[in-house]
Amino acid sequence: MKVGIVGLGLIGGSLGLDLRSQGHTVLGVSRKARTCELAIARGAVDEADSDLALMADVDAIFVCTPIVHILTTVQQLIPHISLDTVVTDVGSVKASIVKDLSPIWKNFVGGHPMAGTAESGIEAALHGLFAGNPYVLTPTDVTPKSAVERIETLLRPLQVKLFHCQPEEHDRAVAWISHLPVMTSASLISACLSESDQAVLNLAKMLASSGFRDTSRVGGGNPELGVMMARFNKSEVLRSLSVYRDRLDQITQLIEQEKWEELQAELEKTQAARSDFL
Amino acid sequence: MKVGIVGLGLIGGSLGLDLRSQGHTVLGVSRKARTCELAIARGAVDEADSDLALMADVDAIFVCTPIVHILTTVQQLIPHISLDTVVTDVGSVKASIVKDLSPIWKNFVGGHPMAGTAESGIEAALHGLFAGNPYVLTPTDVTPKSAVERIETLLRPLQVKLFHCQPEEHDRAVAWISHLPVMTSASLISACLSESDQAVLNLAKMLASSGFRDTSRVGGGNPELGVMMARFNKSEVLRSLSVYRDRLDQITQLIEQEKWEELQAELEKTQAARSDFL
Repeated sequence: MKVGIVGLGLIGGSLGLDLRSQGHTVLGVSRKARTCELAIARGAVDEADSDLALMADVDAIFVCTPIVHILTTVQQLIPHISLDTVVTDVGSVKASIVKDLSPIWKNFVGGHPMAGTAESGIEAALHGLFAGNPYVLTPTDVTPKSAVERIETLLRPLQVKLFHCQPEEHDRAVAWISHLPVMTSASLISACLSESDQAVLNLAKMLASSGFRDTSRVGGGNPELGVMMARFNKSEVLRSLSVYRDRLDQITQLIEQEKWEELQAELEKTQAARSDFL
Repeated sequence: MKVGIVGLGLIGGSLGLDLRSQGHTVLGVSRKARTCELAIARGAVDEADSDLALMADVDAIFVCTPIVHILTTVQQLIPHISLDTVVTDVGSVKASIVKDLSPIWKNFVGGHPMAGTAESGIEAALHGLFAGNPYVLTPTDVTPKSAVERIETLLRPLQVKLFHCQPEEHDRAVAWISHLPVMTSASLISACLSESDQAVLNLAKMLASSGFRDTSRVGGGNPELGVMMARFNKSEVLRSLSVYRDRLDQITQLIEQEKWEELQAELEKTQAARSDFL
């Protein structure tokens, strides 16, 4: 197939590398000429340009821009592409995007590859980034089956784990396992920083090891991404934060009231449950 | 030197392996005959017995029992050992232990090796477990310098990073970077489990990846250890939880009020600060 990628960052670039290695022709669009050059040099695309007219006769387009630009990107694409072109995105929230795009492009399929690294940009693009990882598609009742099939035909050879769900189910699920952890983890770092005894704070910094490293990792991640999660999945993130606060208060009360057996039972429950998620 | 180890689990066994490889004679005590046999077979001790009388003429004793048994272990040791014997412990809280033991044993030095694995027991003991990791000693104004020096002479060749601080400073610092993360991480797992939509919960379990894995790790750890942290470092754990809840509420309010620039600034702060801890 002839595949278009708009937005040549970590995800777009990695998709390009994988799709080209499957024999597809990949055309890329980035606003920056330098990114276009790098994407060609790295082998992530066959051709690249800053002009969306390059997408004129592709079979499918992956919109890999930041979430905030997805809607306008598709609006700008529409004059250039044929009605048969399937458009998909890679945004980490789905309900608001699907709600905006379904009415304006019939062959739109919401998508979210659950893959990434701590790096970003075309320089960070990797072969095989998606292999073995979940890739969620969120077709609705009105999404043409043929559109979903075209995207799946492209993705299956990348050895992704394909999932289908409603956009709202996706957003609630990722609030739990991706967006809420960013907020709880950032709160942990923020709480530590509020220690006013400088000697204790310095000691804490010296003693922090794997437990703190792991628990604080996503709270020390890309700030823009954290804001996007909160902004575009606001209601689900707030819902998960509210439930989280209740659980935190419950554990706090068990400690205040020295209910050690109940705390033990709670920690046994979380220990046993964690493996179901991994 | 002749070194005693009471409690032959992961920490006691690993200390034995390292101290023997430095040429010291290591005598171990465990309540269980089977553990004594395993410790000898693994080379963690030269001799082992269930009788504390084995500690009669050692130069230093590492009490490596669970926190809850440290005080009674030392009380039971006293009739068997000479006044010159230096006693240290490896408990992960220090103020309550030092407060209990300083009055009953002059040559006591509180200690806390910041090392571990997900495993426990003598089977999990490892050569080099402590190398490169912090090892905190908490001598007080009345601790004899010679006692501290004897423990340090044993530990330095293990290539630990030695720190000295007050017991209370230790407990506040580890509340931040070790005990609080257990409670916030357990709350995360507990919150996810409260999702009543089974389809969403199943999807969350399928989609959870490295972010959730890292953030939930210590909350899915040893329940007994979590309870011990809360029980023996109660006031500092509650203090840290209270501050944490304030920070969580602040982030929640930024999202509720759609103050995206302030949320961005907060996440930039946590991103920048995290590297100071690692």
